Amino acid sequence: MSLLLIAKNRDFDSLKKALLEKDPNLDVEIWPRVENRERVNFAVCWNHPEKVLGNYTNLRAVSSLGAGVNHLLDDESIPEDISICRLVTDSLQEQMAEYVLNAIINYRLHIGEYFENKRKGVWEQKNTLPKKYAPVGIMGLGEMGLNVATLLAKQGYIVLGWSRSKKDIDGITSFAGKGDLDDFLSETKILVNLLPLTDETEGFLDLDIFKKLKKPGYLINVGRGDHLVEEDLIYAFDMGYLEGACLDVFEEEPLPKNHSFWNRKQIMITPHIAAITPAKEAAEVIVENYKRAMSGMDLLYEVDREKGY
Amino acid sequence: MSLLLIAKNRDFDSLKKALLEKDPNLDVEIWPRVENRERVNFAVCWNHPEKVLGNYTNLRAVSSLGAGVNHLLDDESIPEDISICRLVTDSLQEQMAEYVLNAIINYRLHIGEYFENKRKGVWEQKNTLPKKYAPVGIMGLGEMGLNVATLLAKQGYIVLGWSRSKKDIDGITSFAGKGDLDDFLSETKILVNLLPLTDETEGFLDLDIFKKLKKPGYLINVGRGDHLVEEDLIYAFDMGYLEGACLDVFEEEPLPKNHSFWNRKQIMITPHIAAITPAKEAAEVIVENYKRAMSGMDLLYEVDREKGY
Repeated sequence: MSLLLIAKNRDFDSLKKALLEKDPNLDVEIWPRVENRERVNFAVCWNHPEKVLGNYTNLRAVSSLGAGVNHLLDDESIPEDISICRLVTDSLQEQMAEYVLNAIINYRLHIGEYFENKRKGVWEQKNTLPKKYAPVGIMGLGEMGLNVATLLAKQGYIVLGWSRSKKDIDGITSFAGKGDLDDFLSETKILVNLLPLTDETEGFLDLDIFKKLKKPGYLINVGRGDHLVEEDLIYAFDMGYLEGACLDVFEEEPLPKNHSFWNRKQIMITPHIAAITPAKEAAEVIVENYKRAMSGMDLLYEVDREKGY
Repeated sequence: MSLLLIAKNRDFDSLKKALLEKDPNLDVEIWPRVENRERVNFAVCWNHPEKVLGNYTNLRAVSSLGAGVNHLLDDESIPEDISICRLVTDSLQEQMAEYVLNAIINYRLHIGEYFENKRKGVWEQKNTLPKKYAPVGIMGLGEMGLNVATLLAKQGYIVLGWSRSKKDIDGITSFAGKGDLDDFLSETKILVNLLPLTDETEGFLDLDIFKKLKKPGYLINVGRGDHLVEEDLIYAFDMGYLEGACLDVFEEEPLPKNHSFWNRKQIMITPHIAAITPAKEAAEVIVENYKRAMSGMDLLYEVDREKGY
């Protein structure tokens, strides 16, 4: 029995070390130099080459190396009876919550403009946007979304949540389904996207959404690049529906050199760093799920392959 | 009886409006066009011209318009029997705590470098500094410092506090007095200055302090500009004691156009905006203290003029 790590251009040294610290008896293989394909029972993948998993005939389960699983769900070479799971750690949720809070404070306090003014040697006090005029609407109340919502509510923000079903959470006004969407948007100034990526949610962040926000709105996309219709974002700036955006994910990553987002002063860009799994915490969840898979138990953070999340 | 607002180059319209909303019977005068000097019993000042308060012979108390009171303590024209108070509101403390948390996250996540990379069209993931390697040491545990410490501890940071006397606060390791200073500094990576400005603390942030931090350290100065020996900050960068600083206050404000700080890539500059009092909240505390002064009661946030805080 062995556990296989697969990703393109990724250094797995620290993860392998952490896995062996957690369980010294593990047999860890790193793609593409796999010694014995038949022995591979569990794979951990991130942006793996298509169909590569078809080479492992004794595979029982596949884990993503992050919270996203679309690279696995889209891979038709993974047999239907194989379990797929996400990698969720406390720390990932904590990082995500801090990232979103940070993006909101940077927006409210005009930190981006102060960075720009510093370059120019300009001292100019701007009015901080009070929290009460900055209601935050969170789309998607999974583990990540809930954690973000809870931190913001504790920090005194007006927090709205939009999800498939109504949630009863202290300090958060819950909206559910298509029927509530317009109400949710009309009370939201800062829109945080944490939806899962499914056929239904691909391209969901479009002009139609942006124009219903409290004007001018602000977008924080920490979901997936494919949620956003990129040209609609630019159009929303030009129309005055949005006054800025903080983006951590993009249709194409790395964001191409010649992409128009780089030159838009309204956009803050971070290179997909909102939630990065530390090796040690990743190892704990992976080893736990490896053992569960080996003994036929349900996995932690297992994905319903039909629903897509 | 009247209440006088004094500041250079400041628009008091919104504060006057908020004061009258709180108490429509108030008589509010705005310097320098004062109709009746004898009727002035209470003054609210920020960077007032020296000795101007000597013109008001029936003054009973003077309030700062912010948490700082050095402009009042330094003014020898204020008779000794007149009470001096600060203006502290929940919101100021909340703003300060969020500002400091934001500065810390910007540092840990390299947000300043991402702003810079965006300008250049560069996509480069940097390693987020995990919280456990970023212990935060807070100098000064007054209302502001305590609030900052509590928020950071709740967010999972390792928090150390240094103050005149030991404090017993959940999640915060307390250090007190000169005897504990070296220990405090040696366990601190991110140093947050929230000391009051006194003869003892002026110029306190110098090379001697910086070189005792976990190397390389990071400085957040939200106290007063005069706490920092500005040339020592530059020297500390050059010596590798510090790798960056976020400064909201300066010896001279606005920071002069030709000041060397503008060109230092390690420094984040904000124009004294970490905690700005909203008019409505200011009005509540001012009206309360005005009434207390008129009836001879102790003031809220009264300053011990001998201690200087």
